[in-house]
Amino acid sequence: MEKNSVGLVETKYFNFDELVLDSKEKLKPVTIAYETYGTLNKDKSNAILIEHALTGDSHAAGEHEDEDKPGWWDSMIGPGKAFDTEKYFVICSNVIGGCKGSTGPASINPKTGKTYGLSFPIITIADMVRAQKKLIDFLGIKKLLTVVGGSMGGMQVLQWLASYPGNLLSAIPIATTVKHSPQQIAFSEVGRQAVMSDPDWRNGNYYGASFPLRGLSVARMIGHITYMSDISMAEKFGRRSKEEKPVFKFEPSFEVEGYLKYRGDSFVKRFDANSYLYITKSLDLFDLAGEKKLHQVFAGIRAKLLILSFKSDWLYPSYQSKEIVKACKLAGVDATYCEIFSTYGHDAFLLEVEEETHLIKHFLEKVESEYDR
Amino acid sequence: MEKNSVGLVETKYFNFDELVLDSKEKLKPVTIAYETYGTLNKDKSNAILIEHALTGDSHAAGEHEDEDKPGWWDSMIGPGKAFDTEKYFVICSNVIGGCKGSTGPASINPKTGKTYGLSFPIITIADMVRAQKKLIDFLGIKKLLTVVGGSMGGMQVLQWLASYPGNLLSAIPIATTVKHSPQQIAFSEVGRQAVMSDPDWRNGNYYGASFPLRGLSVARMIGHITYMSDISMAEKFGRRSKEEKPVFKFEPSFEVEGYLKYRGDSFVKRFDANSYLYITKSLDLFDLAGEKKLHQVFAGIRAKLLILSFKSDWLYPSYQSKEIVKACKLAGVDATYCEIFSTYGHDAFLLEVEEETHLIKHFLEKVESEYDR
Repeated sequence: MEKNSVGLVETKYFNFDELVLDSKEKLKPVTIAYETYGTLNKDKSNAILIEHALTGDSHAAGEHEDEDKPGWWDSMIGPGKAFDTEKYFVICSNVIGGCKGSTGPASINPKTGKTYGLSFPIITIADMVRAQKKLIDFLGIKKLLTVVGGSMGGMQVLQWLASYPGNLLSAIPIATTVKHSPQQIAFSEVGRQAVMSDPDWRNGNYYGASFPLRGLSVARMIGHITYMSDISMAEKFGRRSKEEKPVFKFEPSFEVEGYLKYRGDSFVKRFDANSYLYITKSLDLFDLAGEKKLHQVFAGIRAKLLILSFKSDWLYPSYQSKEIVKACKLAGVDATYCEIFSTYGHDAFLLEVEEETHLIKHFLEKVESEYDR
Repeated sequence: MEKNSVGLVETKYFNFDELVLDSKEKLKPVTIAYETYGTLNKDKSNAILIEHALTGDSHAAGEHEDEDKPGWWDSMIGPGKAFDTEKYFVICSNVIGGCKGSTGPASINPKTGKTYGLSFPIITIADMVRAQKKLIDFLGIKKLLTVVGGSMGGMQVLQWLASYPGNLLSAIPIATTVKHSPQQIAFSEVGRQAVMSDPDWRNGNYYGASFPLRGLSVARMIGHITYMSDISMAEKFGRRSKEEKPVFKFEPSFEVEGYLKYRGDSFVKRFDANSYLYITKSLDLFDLAGEKKLHQVFAGIRAKLLILSFKSDWLYPSYQSKEIVKACKLAGVDATYCEIFSTYGHDAFLLEVEEETHLIKHFLEKVESEYDR
């Protein structure tokens, strides 16, 4: 185990009776899978909520006994790290609609005793955040020191600001947007179509039978292209051929093809196809301001913001972060923006650890010091 | 019919015995579907060869009796247009490996009496051009006034320059590259995986049974995203909802989703899935210079070049065209480059008719006048 790891961790489960969704439907009962790292201080003022992206989960740091890989943001969470577990109490929960312990389409529908499948209601980013608020209440936390996340995680951060502005001191939306552009919707939709065109999908009723693995794998491959950049692919693969000669015509022969296929095929072992549909749909439906002007949404917010984006990220390009910055300025919200130079594309929010650590540590210290006064 | 149309046209077929491919395999016999517009002059010096892109065909201009849509580049070919059929003899042929009349995987393999399917040999851009050279020879043309095409058409243009530099006076590669980047390979590969993961694909042996329509439709949807730009999608669709309310969960609800689905579903009516595999593979394999330096490939070329790219084209970005320009300069080749401002993305080569017409007309006049001297 890495020296600055939070060590062995376990996923915990918080159950509650009912969640009223944006659609007015009621989800009940609800389970939220979550993990915590570090210790909540006496006045419960050191809590940080981490928000995961599309295919992430509550296991953000440390190691599980039966797995050899650490949590998905282990590089950022631990003793001495950006989210220093010697100072902060760090929480990460799996979104509802997910498939990593929180209630989702693969859960049992208590009304029927069978898996939800497509009888699971459409959920929104606001619904995810609403469920998280219940968890935070349960943990007795009145005010979060910060809420932070990249990509879909950033959307949840923005939603926290809009839904519960009084319950957080600061917010760090990374590589995100207040609403999907049609190009972003298009990439989501092609992924969904890949899943739904797999005959094994069977309108979502595949549990207990063969799963729509081929369709989900293709969806993940599309996703992976959008997470990288032209440059990072050129640096990582160039036009190199795979070492093994392909046996069949049209078997992957370039390294980049083999990589994508591998990533697609390993993804389907850990992710539920219906969750992929529900969560990507929540991304597309997300529209923080809706009919309002964005700066109206931010009006009166006293939390400080640190907004980060990455130069080569073409999936959530910097102009979308700059829209947030502009609205903050118009609304008089204290916002700092940094576009980090990176060739990693959208994946940069997981990889540019040094830059992010530097900026976030400094930001959190400032938030704390101003709050103490 | 539009006033400046070449009018009603018919596809012609040129048959020959054998084509030796880059793979050393022999394709025999070979049929090339082609169309011509305008009249070949006495000294056969006014011939222009048009090269089509991935899913194009020989029907570049005018109308077929049984179809209501004109050829794919009708806006550029006709009386008074960029490729003025009152002056020039314009030829366009379907690539081998295609499915619009030229020999391809859906043709009958004379050895077995059955459809080729995957027994069709792997073909390269050079093979396509080799077949076209036979057609040009058959038409008695020694020197083409120009060879022109966008995207994959541009690759064929570049290959003509490399393979038959003495047989053309000029060349116009548009929105193209000398080799696919790993990102371009990745997009091709995901399309192929979408096709091949459709159980109806059956290793390419689907003729006479149900076709892999769902997989091919997903592949086309992916393609369409890459042909447009973030801006052009925003301008065309925004986040507008479809007029009809979706009946099923996850049915397309945004306009952009409906558009992509429609384009995918109509594409499969006109294109063969195996051709999609073979042709995209030829794109990925294309590497004009290979082990050589690019300027070495261009050394000694006396043809004039007009190289065009488009500002918002992120599939074949301008930097790839600039590599061609640079190599031409190093090799002492007479090359003019223009990056056309456009928000249409890669589709711009089909849509920016006014700019292209202006540049190409002027260029062709210059080529003619210098040749006449």
